[in-house]
Amino acid sequence: MFSRSPANPLISPADLSSARDGFEVIGTFNAGVAVQSDEVLMLLRVAERPIHDDDAWIHCPYVNAAGELALKHIRRDDPAYHTHDPRMVRDATTGQMWLTSISHLRLGRSRDGVHFTFDDNCWLAHDPEYASYGVEDARITWHEDDQTYYVNYSAVSPHGIATGLVRTADFHHLEPLGLMFLPSNRDVVIFPRKLKGQYVAYHRPMPAYSHQYNIWLATSPDMIHWGQHQVVLRVERDGWESGRIGGGAPPLWTEHGWLSIYHAADRHDRYCLGAYLTPHDQPERVIARSAAPILEPITPYELEGFFGNVVFTCGALIQNDLLRVYYGAADERMALAEAPLTVVLDSLLKTVAPNYGR
Amino acid sequence: MFSRSPANPLISPADLSSARDGFEVIGTFNAGVAVQSDEVLMLLRVAERPIHDDDAWIHCPYVNAAGELALKHIRRDDPAYHTHDPRMVRDATTGQMWLTSISHLRLGRSRDGVHFTFDDNCWLAHDPEYASYGVEDARITWHEDDQTYYVNYSAVSPHGIATGLVRTADFHHLEPLGLMFLPSNRDVVIFPRKLKGQYVAYHRPMPAYSHQYNIWLATSPDMIHWGQHQVVLRVERDGWESGRIGGGAPPLWTEHGWLSIYHAADRHDRYCLGAYLTPHDQPERVIARSAAPILEPITPYELEGFFGNVVFTCGALIQNDLLRVYYGAADERMALAEAPLTVVLDSLLKTVAPNYGR
Repeated sequence: MFSRSPANPLISPADLSSARDGFEVIGTFNAGVAVQSDEVLMLLRVAERPIHDDDAWIHCPYVNAAGELALKHIRRDDPAYHTHDPRMVRDATTGQMWLTSISHLRLGRSRDGVHFTFDDNCWLAHDPEYASYGVEDARITWHEDDQTYYVNYSAVSPHGIATGLVRTADFHHLEPLGLMFLPSNRDVVIFPRKLKGQYVAYHRPMPAYSHQYNIWLATSPDMIHWGQHQVVLRVERDGWESGRIGGGAPPLWTEHGWLSIYHAADRHDRYCLGAYLTPHDQPERVIARSAAPILEPITPYELEGFFGNVVFTCGALIQNDLLRVYYGAADERMALAEAPLTVVLDSLLKTVAPNYGR
Repeated sequence: MFSRSPANPLISPADLSSARDGFEVIGTFNAGVAVQSDEVLMLLRVAERPIHDDDAWIHCPYVNAAGELALKHIRRDDPAYHTHDPRMVRDATTGQMWLTSISHLRLGRSRDGVHFTFDDNCWLAHDPEYASYGVEDARITWHEDDQTYYVNYSAVSPHGIATGLVRTADFHHLEPLGLMFLPSNRDVVIFPRKLKGQYVAYHRPMPAYSHQYNIWLATSPDMIHWGQHQVVLRVERDGWESGRIGGGAPPLWTEHGWLSIYHAADRHDRYCLGAYLTPHDQPERVIARSAAPILEPITPYELEGFFGNVVFTCGALIQNDLLRVYYGAADERMALAEAPLTVVLDSLLKTVAPNYGR
């Protein structure tokens, strides 16, 4: 159904310079996208780590109370820490997590949606309290009612993974709107217009004592306060959606309803993309859901990387009846896959099952 | 500082009949309290389990999609399940949790606040979607602006532990207000009046990948949508507050500020009570916090029970300058401890530390 761009991977760590002295870029992935005038805008997640050559130590970047970037130095064989996970270190006593890299968001622009030019400076970075381990996985929504862009992102800190929100009309002046959802909640996507007078978002809490990493819906009168939570899409007991699911690209309007591209992982952390449709006025009611993945990790850049076997989207566009899905590959690089919108919709509408109507 | 009631424990499982045929009451604890006319009202958590005498099997109660109470039968030696925890069973493959008992809320009334008479029927019970494993740990707030009671509670299901909310003026007619907070979030307490024009609550998310089980604050324009989340009180690295903390009794107005009684557990799950003060107009700013527990598990009914070494409050009253703290003992019985309000406040105000002003 989808064709991968011949230019894939579009962006790799070697393409960008690090934003900080003494750091190297190790990931350029999970980018949100939007259209502004005749350009495609991209907010890229850039993961960096301190350059060092002593394998006996791990240097975990974080932001201290004074707002300065600092390093926590941990010996790899220190029994006070769990150090086997390449992404994080954990205090064996308290359970506190430290990340081995820190991410920020970088703004890029493109005329053709394939070749991007990036600013050298951070567009959005860490903050001392709720993003002291960095910011990740931006989603951009052009909101038709408010005529402005909303950008939500994962704010990571010792408090866990929360969802932060900023508003911007021009990508130069940013208005911070605080935490949209509490830890642990990520994979948030905002609808591009109000429905029944309310702002609407999908989100994905990570509940303790539960295997249900499902997609939920919430509404808001003001984009600040959220409620009326309910489950929309659930993990499956077996197969490619048995581990977790979560919002991907902000919902796209089509004549058959809202099209949502989401990610699903199985219990072995293999991440694929799926899709579902909801009526224009009922975002809580799934009327069609892909029975099989619409995109799976197959190519070398999807199979191998910082965390292999992953395709993961934060943004998609409909341009000239073409569905263009931007996605992170193996938690390391950016890629693009395209399909005619009608083919995707026809495939979904064939899957309509009675149990999705309620 | 506190004197335990000579009538302790006030309520034990043997004092109540079960609400369901074939079930026995195994816990009467973690009750919310309020004053109505000249009576003390109590919403008691009543935990019940199926009566059976075959130790080879565990019978986990839940509510099925049709809204009927059902049992999941699991052999204790079935390798497909983890069965060592007396409170829950977990599916070894999916991680799904099943509880070994199911709780509902029962309404009781008392003239003296010590001797209570309970209704035979459930006041609030399970529902098929977000409380299919029952409802637990009610907190009652008489809201001065709305001249009505709000009751929040833990709604437990395979989705995790969420916070549900109902409104009632008379404890007969209940208006369900849906989920106030997503899973995993519990220990929610609502302020009895609006502050700066907003409803205010403390809550306690349980973030994944984090040791920070802290007390947060949120605001709402309408009691439905919540936001402006921020951390108010944190766990400590060592000692009696090193495991988790969480809201206890809804905040009480005193001339020195809002008095909050909360619980704190150490890393060995020993639960004590603490207290803190916030200014009348700044519920996010802790100006005094107890350095040592104000109540610790010491008596036999606090040390031994369904889950021993626990004192845990969901409600307290100020009556005739006396602070009356109702608390669950060892996850099994209800008890009462009292202290002169001035003694509690004097003790707190002596602890004021500069690091709590910000």
